[in-house]
Amino acid sequence: MATGKLYKHSLALLTDLYQLTMAFGYWKLGREKEEAIFNLVFREHPFNGGYTITAGLETIIGFLSDLEFDQDDVDYLATLQGNDNKPLFESGFLDYLSNMRFECDIDAMPEGTVAFPHEPMLRITGPILQCQILETALLNMISYQTLIASKAARVCAAAKDEPVLEFGLRRAQGIDGGIAASRAAYIGGCIGTSNVLAGKLYGIPVRGTHAHSWVMSFDDELESFDAYAKALPNNCVFLVDTYDTIQGIKNAIIIGHKLRDRGHTLAGVRLDSGDLAYLSIEARKLLDDAGFPDAAIVASNDLDEFIIDSLKRQDAKINVWGVGTKLATAYDQPALGGVLKLSAIRLPGQDWQYKVKLSEQTTKISNPGILQVRRYHDRSGFIADMIYDEQLGPGDLPIIIDPNDPTRRKRITTNPPYEDLLVPVFRKGELVYDPPSLSRIRQRVQAQIGSLHPTIRRYMNPHTYPAGLEQRLHQLRTELILNARGYTEPPSNQ
Amino acid sequence: MATGKLYKHSLALLTDLYQLTMAFGYWKLGREKEEAIFNLVFREHPFNGGYTITAGLETIIGFLSDLEFDQDDVDYLATLQGNDNKPLFESGFLDYLSNMRFECDIDAMPEGTVAFPHEPMLRITGPILQCQILETALLNMISYQTLIASKAARVCAAAKDEPVLEFGLRRAQGIDGGIAASRAAYIGGCIGTSNVLAGKLYGIPVRGTHAHSWVMSFDDELESFDAYAKALPNNCVFLVDTYDTIQGIKNAIIIGHKLRDRGHTLAGVRLDSGDLAYLSIEARKLLDDAGFPDAAIVASNDLDEFIIDSLKRQDAKINVWGVGTKLATAYDQPALGGVLKLSAIRLPGQDWQYKVKLSEQTTKISNPGILQVRRYHDRSGFIADMIYDEQLGPGDLPIIIDPNDPTRRKRITTNPPYEDLLVPVFRKGELVYDPPSLSRIRQRVQAQIGSLHPTIRRYMNPHTYPAGLEQRLHQLRTELILNARGYTEPPSNQ
Repeated sequence: MATGKLYKHSLALLTDLYQLTMAFGYWKLGREKEEAIFNLVFREHPFNGGYTITAGLETIIGFLSDLEFDQDDVDYLATLQGNDNKPLFESGFLDYLSNMRFECDIDAMPEGTVAFPHEPMLRITGPILQCQILETALLNMISYQTLIASKAARVCAAAKDEPVLEFGLRRAQGIDGGIAASRAAYIGGCIGTSNVLAGKLYGIPVRGTHAHSWVMSFDDELESFDAYAKALPNNCVFLVDTYDTIQGIKNAIIIGHKLRDRGHTLAGVRLDSGDLAYLSIEARKLLDDAGFPDAAIVASNDLDEFIIDSLKRQDAKINVWGVGTKLATAYDQPALGGVLKLSAIRLPGQDWQYKVKLSEQTTKISNPGILQVRRYHDRSGFIADMIYDEQLGPGDLPIIIDPNDPTRRKRITTNPPYEDLLVPVFRKGELVYDPPSLSRIRQRVQAQIGSLHPTIRRYMNPHTYPAGLEQRLHQLRTELILNARGYTEPPSNQ
Repeated sequence: MATGKLYKHSLALLTDLYQLTMAFGYWKLGREKEEAIFNLVFREHPFNGGYTITAGLETIIGFLSDLEFDQDDVDYLATLQGNDNKPLFESGFLDYLSNMRFECDIDAMPEGTVAFPHEPMLRITGPILQCQILETALLNMISYQTLIASKAARVCAAAKDEPVLEFGLRRAQGIDGGIAASRAAYIGGCIGTSNVLAGKLYGIPVRGTHAHSWVMSFDDELESFDAYAKALPNNCVFLVDTYDTIQGIKNAIIIGHKLRDRGHTLAGVRLDSGDLAYLSIEARKLLDDAGFPDAAIVASNDLDEFIIDSLKRQDAKINVWGVGTKLATAYDQPALGGVLKLSAIRLPGQDWQYKVKLSEQTTKISNPGILQVRRYHDRSGFIADMIYDEQLGPGDLPIIIDPNDPTRRKRITTNPPYEDLLVPVFRKGELVYDPPSLSRIRQRVQAQIGSLHPTIRRYMNPHTYPAGLEQRLHQLRTELILNARGYTEPPSNQ
């Protein structure tokens, strides 16, 4: 698992302090065996898009598989003080943490699933104390990779059938900001990365040739290309814009002929500045006229889906797109805004009590229950998603209700095929899931996106996919909300 | 060192593939002993600000101190292939990497220094092969922490004398996106973090009490506060907006009296939604009237410097600001755009050859030379910064020239005191620098910001601080640019 490969210790302390103070509270009150269900959801698609691609589950699995509070961790916690300068935590609690083993159930959407607002991407069931401690890390790992996989899918959609390479490590937010970005970008559809460590850890294809500094380290550009071609004849994509791009292309062609004479190939040229539409068209002409119709034109320089789209509308002759900063940092929306919300709680051996979190903003009110997502489909693709409660069940001929506008409904009448999206990942702390390879996840992404109507795939002003609550779950939720606001009796069907 | 504490292995492969193909090229051409100088610079202040706070050097030191290509790394590199399906790298090169030890010089601005566009924040001198391999990691680590420290300084400036807590881990970009953000936010002026692992690794004060889920796990809010107060009487800041904020404040007061009766303190309440201006004013009245004038009002919920400023203009009664997503991801500009540019190269034992990288965008043209930054000051603070070449020297009565508009100049006439900002960190790969503690770095930040004119500290539409090139360096650079564009003879004073 990736966290095990990369990190020296367990990351048990990768949490917010309030998770530990609450955990201490539950322990102190003798509630450590009380069970809860939390759901990881987002409220709006990132980038004003029409769908979101889940990612990060394997990172979570690695994190949970390594989870333990080691002596260092509890020694550190023992130093923390409250406002009376006395210890925040009792030693009995620290012993409890030292001996604690992860014992929750986790159900999650497989990586590479398209997800919609309010759908649980991950559900954790187990001692409330453990759920609480894990909340921060679960959010951190899933939200960021989901954000980047979704961004990559958009960028790749703009590039259509042309390959996209992820070049973001130098601009990424921290060390494994970069590593996680490379993994998620590959899931989302990129064909490779410049990030060598991500290549090693995850088996992602790595790509790269040379930078401006290579050219500058020689007396002139032609000499630099010649030297590179001698050293690495099987990896020749020449960066042509260090001094003058058109001259650079001509120099690449001169060396291209030499490569060909020696039995090698001019793989392409890279444009990293200037007017990429104009320059790529000129480069294509020069390369074609010189007998290099197969030499690729790679473009980079602050690209994103909108610039790629614009370049394609201008008939830019670009074959490979290198996308860095805008992808690895999700520049136009650098956080997904994921939340993990409590939906039920129970004493050991008793029934679940369903819970909602209120808010003056309708979209911020949480969903109660033991939530599952059923996705209906037909031969042409996905029809609708229904969030239902596993105790109430999915219902016959179910009606799906938009929680933000309960008059928007969709009736499922034809018994279409369906898939329940949350699958068991952990049971009582034991891994019961065999994580698919990255290439399988990539295939899933393409199949999932391909099952969406083209109007939903549109990356500007997309159509809204039908996704909502099963009718009885909606009714139960409404009753719980009204009840919490003091308007009605407790719900009748809980 | 942090990377050594956190990561299992050396992070030698935390680089772009093209750095390794170039390194192989230098090795293959017998140029592995050739030396280069690269400078890490940014071109514009982030967030349209007037200054930037450097951070990340200690992370770099940890990374470089652990640097080595282990067997795993070279085994992986041996699997990489070129477009003829033959190995990309020769085994002799992989042996070279295995035996390679870091042997560069690094000079850098101490963490917590205010920096300006085009000033080298870090300079690396040594075998071009090594500089190249390290480029990506240096950029990654310095750029992100510098971005977040600068953002934190802005947020803290908006909060004026009131403390700011960093709460961003759950929304940060990856695992140590969060960890590095907490460190940098503390450097920039935050007084603590919610991130427990950052607390342990760096000694940053950690803060936190409870979430909505704590309240929801009880039958009612009052019972939840009462239980929390029993479990953690020395850490009582009650989150009051789970159901109804005003009622929540009243419940906090009820428990506050109980706490006081038992010899403890109601530390405060936290508002996490709704109209923070209105609610904080109401909360203050209720708390004061109930005899809790010292209970703090903590606010959170998508805060940034602009919202904090707006709340203060509305006389919001907020004592502590919790800032998460907008700070930890630098939401309005999630990448600094740092670059590492070659400025000189030499064969062993020969003179430095100065280098510039051209661009059609004036601000993207690099600076040649062995660059140092001299900061002049007087009793009232900093006067101007001058980038000079160590071979040409700083000059007597120097003139500082704005590289983007050479007619904008400033003459230094009075022999004011100065500080040369780049200090030796590594010499021939040996650490020669004693990194200051985080608290010293924080003090430096405050002293540095305090030495800027208030018009430069302004976080909207700031005045531009005078910073530019020493006159002869400017002349040399101009000659090199013109020469590269074919307009004049080679420079006369190199």
